[in-house]
Amino acid sequence: MSHYNGASSRRTFLSKSAGLAGSVVAGRALADSLADVPTREPGDPISGRSERSKYVQLGRTLEAGPGLRNVDPSDAINSKTPLHKLVGNITPSDLHYERSHSGVPELDPAKHRLLIHGMVKKPLVLSVDDLTAMPSVSRIHFIECTGNGWENWKRADPNLTVQDTHGLISTNEWTGVPLALLIDLIGTDRGSTWMLAEGGDGAGVDRSIPLTDEIINQAIVAYGQNGEPLRPAHGFPIRLIMPGFEGNLHIKWLRRLKFGDQPWMTRWETARYTQLLSDGKARQFQLRMEANSVITSPSGMMEIRPGYNRITGLAWSGHGRIAKVEVSTDGGKTWKEANMSEPALPKAQTRFQINWEWDGKPTKIVSRSTDEKGNVQPDRKALIDQMGTNALFHYNAQQTWSVDASGRVRNVLA
Amino acid sequence: MSHYNGASSRRTFLSKSAGLAGSVVAGRALADSLADVPTREPGDPISGRSERSKYVQLGRTLEAGPGLRNVDPSDAINSKTPLHKLVGNITPSDLHYERSHSGVPELDPAKHRLLIHGMVKKPLVLSVDDLTAMPSVSRIHFIECTGNGWENWKRADPNLTVQDTHGLISTNEWTGVPLALLIDLIGTDRGSTWMLAEGGDGAGVDRSIPLTDEIINQAIVAYGQNGEPLRPAHGFPIRLIMPGFEGNLHIKWLRRLKFGDQPWMTRWETARYTQLLSDGKARQFQLRMEANSVITSPSGMMEIRPGYNRITGLAWSGHGRIAKVEVSTDGGKTWKEANMSEPALPKAQTRFQINWEWDGKPTKIVSRSTDEKGNVQPDRKALIDQMGTNALFHYNAQQTWSVDASGRVRNVLA
Repeated sequence: MSHYNGASSRRTFLSKSAGLAGSVVAGRALADSLADVPTREPGDPISGRSERSKYVQLGRTLEAGPGLRNVDPSDAINSKTPLHKLVGNITPSDLHYERSHSGVPELDPAKHRLLIHGMVKKPLVLSVDDLTAMPSVSRIHFIECTGNGWENWKRADPNLTVQDTHGLISTNEWTGVPLALLIDLIGTDRGSTWMLAEGGDGAGVDRSIPLTDEIINQAIVAYGQNGEPLRPAHGFPIRLIMPGFEGNLHIKWLRRLKFGDQPWMTRWETARYTQLLSDGKARQFQLRMEANSVITSPSGMMEIRPGYNRITGLAWSGHGRIAKVEVSTDGGKTWKEANMSEPALPKAQTRFQINWEWDGKPTKIVSRSTDEKGNVQPDRKALIDQMGTNALFHYNAQQTWSVDASGRVRNVLA
Repeated sequence: MSHYNGASSRRTFLSKSAGLAGSVVAGRALADSLADVPTREPGDPISGRSERSKYVQLGRTLEAGPGLRNVDPSDAINSKTPLHKLVGNITPSDLHYERSHSGVPELDPAKHRLLIHGMVKKPLVLSVDDLTAMPSVSRIHFIECTGNGWENWKRADPNLTVQDTHGLISTNEWTGVPLALLIDLIGTDRGSTWMLAEGGDGAGVDRSIPLTDEIINQAIVAYGQNGEPLRPAHGFPIRLIMPGFEGNLHIKWLRRLKFGDQPWMTRWETARYTQLLSDGKARQFQLRMEANSVITSPSGMMEIRPGYNRITGLAWSGHGRIAKVEVSTDGGKTWKEANMSEPALPKAQTRFQINWEWDGKPTKIVSRSTDEKGNVQPDRKALIDQMGTNALFHYNAQQTWSVDASGRVRNVLA
């Protein structure tokens, strides 16, 4: 259990950290003179909750769709996580991205029920207390809106931050009842191969979910996030967690699970959440989120200086663990393997970083991830060759940030 | 990667879950009639931050010392985490316990500096920006006040909740610069075997830390918790993280690291934070937190009903990973191994749970943990035989909750 990134990384950092030389104190006398604390003022009283510092400003941005940024709350359809201001792997609960189709209901947990019915031996209606009394699991997983990255399908607005381009993904610890246990309780009929999950919000979002072994073994009817009850924006009192799959399948305000032998073809999987291909046909049920990554610093609208710069970002895949992240600082000509946060958890955002000495010349920086199943994040050309530019969802092309001679970092297509 | 606790646990739960039978819908017709959503009201607008539900009340309790509970903020010396209301392994940042010796300062990160000096080749003064620009690590670890459990050294107040008995421990993801990297930067002198860490609060808490390989490789100068900047109560803008060691060593508002060849014998390690032994002598530098665990549900002041009950709680050790948690429902006569959250992370709280069919007769429930180094959490008699009852700190005896015939759960000594 070593926390440190190894001798090689250490030497690289030390050899490149000349930029920190300005911080070195000239002599011991001065250093020792700084050892005295100037004041000993008592601080604020201890409190029932630890609020953020007034020096820390963190918030999500509100959007009404691709290109429709910073709108009024009444027009917003989603809010994006400030990835460029966060550290580590976990997203604070109040900054988890949200995508809602009829606003945020505040349901009374004492009245809320989960109905489980259809092709089952024993239909059930469960209260929230029933669920929290059952055996539970707690796992750290990302949820990603299938629209994450959609700003870059057709063109690249240079004035986007990474919150704008990639802020529809977050990672929390989710706690709840394994779907497999509920299936054991109800006893599904032979031939029951699909499950309809329906939300209790005004939109009543409902999606058909294929009952693969992977989904049965990994899905969770969750009531907790990051140690506390779900927040209303994230499905309070219960939501479905579908690790690795489209955010839209993680049904919030979950009120119903129906079992059957075919998909229900709801409007959310026919009119919406389908992928328009280059030949004009639409692909349905492209459910899994692909291998992906993005550099969060330096990233869009930041400015850097020549010399040592740490490049850091997040990688994830709906297929499982991230196995490797490579970073190029010459627009994709050459690649170096980045250090990754350990342990890399399955279907969770994993932070990567690498040391970089910027020579002050214009260049492009880009990351690509490889997951444990061998899936490699495609470059933009490969993705467009395959999908065309009509598509709206599942944009997982490598994200390129350009750096100009003055150190300005901007969103570009490749 | 299976989320589910295995066939054995499944069978046990299903055989004991008769208590849920009341939730079973009588017939399919009724179940299907419930499928219609009664209303389709739009919810609240999407917002910049997701607040908690009005139905969820979470807060820390304020204390002035052992037995001095629920005091005014101006009298409080600590705040305790509501373990009985949390789920999973992680503690929400605003509910992380705190112990402060001169309140909570709100430091300006633009002005704050970390001085590193003493027996070093190159003294340094680092800004917060210097630190956040360096290579970082992110790890999930508990911090535990050495006083956690102190309510039970001499007697057991039956009216304590688990927040009262064990609320001085929390687990967050911490992000920051490895101590090893800072030591590489400064170049310690040969013979530099101790480090003084000093806080920038009014109390100026300072502690001497032995520079073992374990500490050099695992300690972090942290600026982030659970993905965001530290909160003021937890050391903003920087604090020391000393995985597995006394909370008091995780110096908050860190302003100085001094290297030397012996401990400084500060008041915090002579007059305070020493352990009074039964022979009247005091033990210094008992730094590591021991193997420990506690059942959080059912726990003090709760009431249970006969039939199926899930027993769940948290286990941790300053020695590394938790290897095993056992639970007894007959006051320690017989033990069964509990399921544990996976992966069990080193020096992090790990949730455990086990199914229990309560027959309605008075009994006692208790948990004991074993860590990967083979340390077994002692029962109370073994701890008292070794330490006597003068001690104030490092109380890691097995926690026993009694259950009376009416289902009332109470704090008892064994």
